[in-house]
Amino acid sequence: MGVLIVGSVALDSVRTPFGEVEEVLGGSATYGSIAASYFTDVDLVAVVGEDFPEPHREFLRRRNINVDGLVTKPGRTFRWKGEYGFQLNEAKTLRTELNVLETFQPTLPASYRQAEVVFLANIDPELQLHVLRQVERPRLVAADTMNFWIDGKREALLRVLKEIDLLMINDGEARSLAKEVNLVKAAQWILGCGPKGLIIKRGEYGAMMFNAHRVFIAPAYPLESVFDPTGAGDSFAGGLLGYLAQSDDLSDATLRRAVIYGSAMASFAVEAFSVDRLKDVTEEALQTRVREFKAMTAFEEIVP
Amino acid sequence: MGVLIVGSVALDSVRTPFGEVEEVLGGSATYGSIAASYFTDVDLVAVVGEDFPEPHREFLRRRNINVDGLVTKPGRTFRWKGEYGFQLNEAKTLRTELNVLETFQPTLPASYRQAEVVFLANIDPELQLHVLRQVERPRLVAADTMNFWIDGKREALLRVLKEIDLLMINDGEARSLAKEVNLVKAAQWILGCGPKGLIIKRGEYGAMMFNAHRVFIAPAYPLESVFDPTGAGDSFAGGLLGYLAQSDDLSDATLRRAVIYGSAMASFAVEAFSVDRLKDVTEEALQTRVREFKAMTAFEEIVP
Repeated sequence: MGVLIVGSVALDSVRTPFGEVEEVLGGSATYGSIAASYFTDVDLVAVVGEDFPEPHREFLRRRNINVDGLVTKPGRTFRWKGEYGFQLNEAKTLRTELNVLETFQPTLPASYRQAEVVFLANIDPELQLHVLRQVERPRLVAADTMNFWIDGKREALLRVLKEIDLLMINDGEARSLAKEVNLVKAAQWILGCGPKGLIIKRGEYGAMMFNAHRVFIAPAYPLESVFDPTGAGDSFAGGLLGYLAQSDDLSDATLRRAVIYGSAMASFAVEAFSVDRLKDVTEEALQTRVREFKAMTAFEEIVP
Repeated sequence: MGVLIVGSVALDSVRTPFGEVEEVLGGSATYGSIAASYFTDVDLVAVVGEDFPEPHREFLRRRNINVDGLVTKPGRTFRWKGEYGFQLNEAKTLRTELNVLETFQPTLPASYRQAEVVFLANIDPELQLHVLRQVERPRLVAADTMNFWIDGKREALLRVLKEIDLLMINDGEARSLAKEVNLVKAAQWILGCGPKGLIIKRGEYGAMMFNAHRVFIAPAYPLESVFDPTGAGDSFAGGLLGYLAQSDDLSDATLRRAVIYGSAMASFAVEAFSVDRLKDVTEEALQTRVREFKAMTAFEEIVP
């Protein structure tokens, strides 16, 4: 199985306590696609402006990402400018220029319509539904969202929830969506809206996966230096879904492993600005990190 | 092995979004001793005033806690009044009355001096050293502290670090102590000060155990209703040290299991005000919770 990813491709300007970059490659679909590309074929759906640097498109192609769905429209590429403090836990948005994203109405290339795993990254829930209607028989549909849509397009978002299998959002978003402070109760409320699974991303604290009867909790990889958290959540989602697509299996055991592979991908993403670290992950580095996750969390509850 | 615990015995007044209690049994040594008492003999060292209700002392005795070291001094018992918001993650202290705690200079009963596991709960580091000098040959000494001592008695605290095996503090305290935002680097700095092990408590996010070459990360038990977080950290420490004492083994495997038993004890402590839930934990409830921790965290990194 391959993965279809729809979301944003952006030019990001980011300042952290450790440095600053201007107009580097970013966007939810970018991080998601690169992370997924380590595991499976990726069909990317996004829009850029005429100013989008050709080397970026070339780079995505070299990572075996199908960019037939990356359309160029008249105007400027979506731009985001943000800043992080020393805690690195929350971005302060300094400027958002939607540009070509404002009128984005994706039409899937014919070859994308048989996609079996679909990731609706953080875009307008109306667009998420619009994309979903063009996919024929997906086996797994996952989505992300943000407070902007939770507050502003709640009805459309609730319709999205009815049609997806897996929602991946952060803890603040889960609380806002369910209007409930307690995460366990918030998760139950969200599962009641439709999705069979819910993954709550908690940044440096890792992720929780809920389904009707089970919870799986994974830590974040403890890094000595987190350089730039931008794209961590999308890299997590891309790695997770890429691993699932490659495995061709949706059992609980495989889902758990997928959460770990996603967490590993997120840990690489935050080690450098933009996709500078994420773009060159060796199979050995990935497997080492996954083994470390096991070593960091394993215990025997009974004396052997 | 038994556990010697020195710390505070208090009368707490607590307000949470779910209710309010006045002058109920609390204090670091209280929570720690009760949690430890499920696993091993406990020698309690603390001070109370003449107003300390006799039923509380009786209750501790019934839990097989040795209260020979719980001295009564003229004056009033230590009182703490605090409040939690809906997030339940941080107490706002409304009032602290040290009372008899202000001049506390514990002298250990002779029978306590052979203690093999010692927990110096959160008190003045000078007092922690004073207690430690009275213990003859402990196999494991653990300590807690707080920002008040990190800021106000740094030199004494650094002397404590040289003499203990295990420090258990929360993430904010670890960052303050090491003057370093990154937790991995903060942990390395703290281990450089003396202790062989460091446990960083992260409230609803669980705990991380660091030693020279290893990290173990455990989640907190995801509860549907957290009623009152007071005493969670002390219950964690008491459960952990009680389990270690009972096991008579300090291997990494046993330490990991001890973190899980401590986490289970903390999860019971927060389910009700004061020690109302912690005081009646059945063996079955405890074992069920430990098995759930395993089920929530286990994954196989390799396809079987």
